Order: sequence, then C-alpha cells, then structure tokens
Amino acid sequence: MKNYHATVTVTLRKAILDVQGKTVESALHSLHMPQLGNVRIGKHIELSVQAPDADTAREVVREACDKLLTNPVMEDYAVNITEEGAA
Amino acid sequence: MKNYHATVTVTLRKAILDVQGKTVESALHSLHMPQLGNVRIGKHIELSVQAPDADTAREVVREACDKLLTNPVMEDYAVNITEEGAA
Repeated sequence: MKNYHATVTVTLRKAILDVQGKTVESALHSLHMPQLGNVRIGKHIELSVQAPDADTAREVVREACDKLLTNPVMEDYAVNITEEGAA
Repeated sequence: MKNYHATVTVTLRKAILDVQGKTVESALHSLHMPQLGNVRIGKHIELSVQAPDADTAREVVREACDKLLTNPVMEDYAVNITEEGAA
C-alpha cells in the first residue's frame, strides 16, 4: 500500500446559474474592481488515499465523488492524484 | 487590454481545524471507504480579468482576494493566471 495525495476540483456546470458567483461579482464591482467578471465558485477538496497504485487511488476518489462529494446533476469534477513524498 | 482567466485556490491554513473536512471524512468512512483520510475542503474560484498584461491581472486578483475573497487570518490562497484564447 502506498500513500497518495488527491485533489478534487468541483465546479458548477456551465449551464447552471452561479448565484454565489454573481453576488461576489457585484461585490467586487462595488469595491471598484470592474475589470473582474464571470466569477464562478466551486470547491477544492484535498485528501489522502491509501492504495496499491495510482489507478486504484483514482478509482476510490471517483467513487467518493459520485457518492458523496459532488452533485453529479449540477457539478463537474476533476481528480488529480500524486504520490506522497514525490514532489 | 487583454482578457485573462484567473483561478484562485483558497485553502484553510494547516494549523486550523477543518470541521467540514472532518465531517466529510467520517461520512466517507461510514460509506466503507476507510482508505481515505486527511480531508480538507477549500474553495475554487474562477474569474475573468481585463488587464494590459498578466502581472497587472495577477495584482488585481490578489487585491480582490485580500479585500473580499479570502480571510487572510485563516486561509491561504494561490492565484493562477492564463491568457484567454491560449490553451
């Protein structure tokens, strides 16, 4: 068993209105930063995985995403796996 | 003026207890995934920036992070800038 470090980036699907993002965008404009726009807010999840190899680690993290971490109807996600100790 | 795409990754500082992460971790263990651990949950923010060059774009996004997007006492952030249209 090796230790892997996984990062999951969860983003709202393009077709879904990002209400939180719109609110932040108008707050930024109120703070005199009109050059910022198209704000979309998602989640960044880091976790450690024990698995025999990177493919198995990815498989376990994908299962966790599908079962708990993301809403597959509204959100997309990307998984990145790195071996711990390796830079 | 060019269009840049910025992504900001906001993470809770290591010394701060991540209550949300701990809750998700115990939920994952309840779902028979004991090989997952050290769950930490942060934010992933995407936005577009109009700026004359990448350095100015980064400066504006950093200002937005310091003023609104992050809590500098509890959170760290990383900014990544790419020119729009470029892959």
